[in-house]
Amino acid sequence: MAEGSWIRRMFEEGAELKKRYGEENVFDLSLGNPIIEPPAEFFRELKKLAEHPQSGMHRYMSNAGYAETRAAVAEQLSLETGIKFTLNEIIMTCGAAGALNVVLKTILNQGDEVIIFAPYFAEYVHYIDNHYGVARILPTDEQFAPRLDALEETINKKTRAVMVNSPNNPSGAVYSEEKLCELGELLRKKEAQYGTQILLISDEAYRKLIYDNLQYPFPLHHHTQSLITTSHSKDLALPGERIGYIAIHPECREREELVNGFIHVNRTLGFVNASALMQHLVRNLQSVNVSVAEYQQKRDSLYENLTGMGYSVTKPQGAFYMFPKSPLEDDVKFVRELQQLKVLTVPGQGFGTPGYFRIAYCVEDRALEDSLPGFRQMAEKIGLV
Amino acid sequence: MAEGSWIRRMFEEGAELKKRYGEENVFDLSLGNPIIEPPAEFFRELKKLAEHPQSGMHRYMSNAGYAETRAAVAEQLSLETGIKFTLNEIIMTCGAAGALNVVLKTILNQGDEVIIFAPYFAEYVHYIDNHYGVARILPTDEQFAPRLDALEETINKKTRAVMVNSPNNPSGAVYSEEKLCELGELLRKKEAQYGTQILLISDEAYRKLIYDNLQYPFPLHHHTQSLITTSHSKDLALPGERIGYIAIHPECREREELVNGFIHVNRTLGFVNASALMQHLVRNLQSVNVSVAEYQQKRDSLYENLTGMGYSVTKPQGAFYMFPKSPLEDDVKFVRELQQLKVLTVPGQGFGTPGYFRIAYCVEDRALEDSLPGFRQMAEKIGLV
Repeated sequence: MAEGSWIRRMFEEGAELKKRYGEENVFDLSLGNPIIEPPAEFFRELKKLAEHPQSGMHRYMSNAGYAETRAAVAEQLSLETGIKFTLNEIIMTCGAAGALNVVLKTILNQGDEVIIFAPYFAEYVHYIDNHYGVARILPTDEQFAPRLDALEETINKKTRAVMVNSPNNPSGAVYSEEKLCELGELLRKKEAQYGTQILLISDEAYRKLIYDNLQYPFPLHHHTQSLITTSHSKDLALPGERIGYIAIHPECREREELVNGFIHVNRTLGFVNASALMQHLVRNLQSVNVSVAEYQQKRDSLYENLTGMGYSVTKPQGAFYMFPKSPLEDDVKFVRELQQLKVLTVPGQGFGTPGYFRIAYCVEDRALEDSLPGFRQMAEKIGLV
Repeated sequence: MAEGSWIRRMFEEGAELKKRYGEENVFDLSLGNPIIEPPAEFFRELKKLAEHPQSGMHRYMSNAGYAETRAAVAEQLSLETGIKFTLNEIIMTCGAAGALNVVLKTILNQGDEVIIFAPYFAEYVHYIDNHYGVARILPTDEQFAPRLDALEETINKKTRAVMVNSPNNPSGAVYSEEKLCELGELLRKKEAQYGTQILLISDEAYRKLIYDNLQYPFPLHHHTQSLITTSHSKDLALPGERIGYIAIHPECREREELVNGFIHVNRTLGFVNASALMQHLVRNLQSVNVSVAEYQQKRDSLYENLTGMGYSVTKPQGAFYMFPKSPLEDDVKFVRELQQLKVLTVPGQGFGTPGYFRIAYCVEDRALEDSLPGFRQMAEKIGLV
């Protein structure tokens, strides 16, 4: 469980370094806390609401959220996926982290297994553990795509769910249509074999951040026993506001029972409902997105620079992370040495994948540029080129 | 556990009745969803922020919340209690429900016992159950004050916490200084006897809503092994925004470990942090409160009317609930019959106390007045006078 705290540990140590050396002399690439401000449309909506407050707009609403907001989410998601969602399949949540805890608490009995693929967002293990599930961690291939041979061997009658996260934190990988197609087939085969429902949980927090004009391959297209957890933390740059949702596939079996369960747990786990004000705001912002071009530029520049120095990097297709191979076998040692040069990253161990390190490039261009000498110094010291 | 859903059940059934008979013909006294709008100061702060957004104001912050907001809470709480709080004792949370789940998850091992007094807010049982604790439910006296003889008999070496809720939902009772003093003494005696720490959890969601110029008796004055969970849902009328906090007694043993635990669990349970925007807003509103006089007037008028009809009511000293004796032995039957007259209340069973019913009077005066004929018709039918 110690690995789960690596991101925050590096963040806290970074805060110490900043105090000592000055904010501008430490290059913090440790946290996925986007520097990009929310889009202008968000501020316009906020101003409109502040200037014309609606009566009752901060009261309790239904635990699932406002019908109007759920309908707006359903409409946009229907457009994007081609799957016909209605408000009955949408539950507004306290971010994607809230969504995942609500889903896992609802579906898990003590000892049920949930499969995740490494590298993974380390909090997943806490979420599964919170509700007395068992996390089964499987490897990915060189491109960070799920190893389906391992999945086939691992699924058993206690497998309640398989979690995927594309675009992936920390690798930036976007799972291909082909891979998802094979994944769906495998899940159905295993469901038939064991007479169970294996939920495909698609954590799509980074769905809107994909590059090179890629079309997002939706996991839900390949398995109907499935749901999305996501948030507006990245597409609207609102991570501190905790606004997200669950969207369950309309053809999921026992959909109504599951949705009722989600609503109940959203209440009893203490979330109660997603922020009323944020629900009012995002209702009109479903088709709005931060500038992806800006992130793509950061990715391109960082990728070129790092590979030019001899680092081995799989080019990320989405999110705002890069997950290069650690030039030292011990990724913690490498990250510590880099930290001495005032460049903050997170060891791969923090994502269940030693031998790599994560760079969060959702920072000012200047911070990225200023981190390059540190990366170069390490590359030269280790003799990468 | 079925009882836990009574409030929401009556709320949902009420929604059906409203559809059928029209909103204005159904008098909904079932939910603690204050009709009073947030104070003018709140809207002023919101407008100020919307007009002059600060860079980065929607990003992640420390999981405990903004230092400035925590310091503002600590300052006001120090003033009110005379206990010296600093920001290190304050964790901003997703409402009081979030605060309670965070506290219980942090302190409970499987099978640990938590004592609550009936009548109680039914969600408490869910919160304890979520984290594999065992709820021990004890009676109160005729004035709805905790029965300390029962407490003395019940505390054992597995007792991890005692929860109090003053002003109380649903009874409106405010626990007296004397009662709290005896409670504190008893807890210390038992802590010494078993060599344990018994945390006094004071849920103070209604602390600012007390009447007749009563001074609030703080439970924390009578036991240092203690903490407050609360929110701005009632004092600032922001229930839909989920903004609250945990405040731990500065002299609590293992305070630092507990606080670190709360911060960790706030993150891993999926709350991550309380809404950034709300934290910016409430920072400057710590001394602001909705009009208590308005609620007191509602209480007085309702109390006079109901007792005049022959209902037996213990006069509430705080919150916005009344908890009269059910004129029929079967409180569910009474509430159902009242529902037929379009007056919506909640049976005492929903609070672990059959034989009573709860009225939430945080509604428009007109709704209260229009509900009186229903109450009178029932009183006459049953022959109360």
